[in-house]
Amino acid sequence: MNFEEKIIKSDSKYHGQIIDVYQDTVILPDGQQANRDVVKHQDAVAVLMITDDDKAIFEEQWRTPIEKTTIEIPAGKVEPEEDFLETAKRELNEETRYKADHIEKITGFYSTPGFADEYMVLYKATGLSPVQKELPKDQGENLRIFELTLPEALQKVNDGEIEDAKTIMAIYYWQAMKK
Amino acid sequence: MNFEEKIIKSDSKYHGQIIDVYQDTVILPDGQQANRDVVKHQDAVAVLMITDDDKAIFEEQWRTPIEKTTIEIPAGKVEPEEDFLETAKRELNEETRYKADHIEKITGFYSTPGFADEYMVLYKATGLSPVQKELPKDQGENLRIFELTLPEALQKVNDGEIEDAKTIMAIYYWQAMKK
Repeated sequence: MNFEEKIIKSDSKYHGQIIDVYQDTVILPDGQQANRDVVKHQDAVAVLMITDDDKAIFEEQWRTPIEKTTIEIPAGKVEPEEDFLETAKRELNEETRYKADHIEKITGFYSTPGFADEYMVLYKATGLSPVQKELPKDQGENLRIFELTLPEALQKVNDGEIEDAKTIMAIYYWQAMKK
Repeated sequence: MNFEEKIIKSDSKYHGQIIDVYQDTVILPDGQQANRDVVKHQDAVAVLMITDDDKAIFEEQWRTPIEKTTIEIPAGKVEPEEDFLETAKRELNEETRYKADHIEKITGFYSTPGFADEYMVLYKATGLSPVQKELPKDQGENLRIFELTLPEALQKVNDGEIEDAKTIMAIYYWQAMKK
């Protein structure tokens, strides 16, 4: 079965700070033409950080697109010349002031492949200890850092207090691993 | 701690088929101004459909933003006048030709709150049987429907063959529930 939608034109519609938006014209498998909205976004990482006493580290921060704060695991965009693992280590330092003895990849995924190309790698970090040298924080990034046990985190998912996709994914993974 | 970024201006940048894009100007808690990219997208649902022999139903489809096919659980946008549960039942019919005796909410989440407002409700559907009356399919939507056991689905996550965020979230949930 042939699924391919061949792009024959890509019109730039918006060049923003963290996204670029295109309207693509495609040829469908049946020969018809259609338009597709495409948001381009840098690759990113997210990290499930587990402390020695088996709590995960979360951040509360403001998210303008939804006009409220969210509770999320630490995450950030891959910078030029960085690989995913380097980004993970840098974000741990910048956002939580921890370094990790062990960082392993859990999985990689597209956040919303229906309209955007953002690809994210989810890591698990353990063996946490305070960093010696603190990297400068991102300007205008206000974070409240705190820890939750797995039952506390699951309760906040059920209560709708945690409603960020990658964070819920990480909590379900944590639950699946523990049992 | 005050996190709020007060929106003082919202410039429409692109009106697309499934997204609208704005550049918002905000006042940060420290009084500085900043710009924020905001993608508006309809609410949506996704459904973890479990058959009587304990397999989940997946769809392979083309995703233009990433220029390849993905394997995802059934999902779709909430239409005007619909609630989330009605959307779930309609998508089950349109995409898989099944109806479900039991549909329960697993969780709700923002896909990418850093740049978009898409909110999605994830359901679990069981007691599946073929529909009597088939609703018309979406035009230009080409899907290959198939079933996987939990070990098969986890293998495809580990191999990178399943790399859609909501689908991986649903598989980890399925795994956590089974143990």
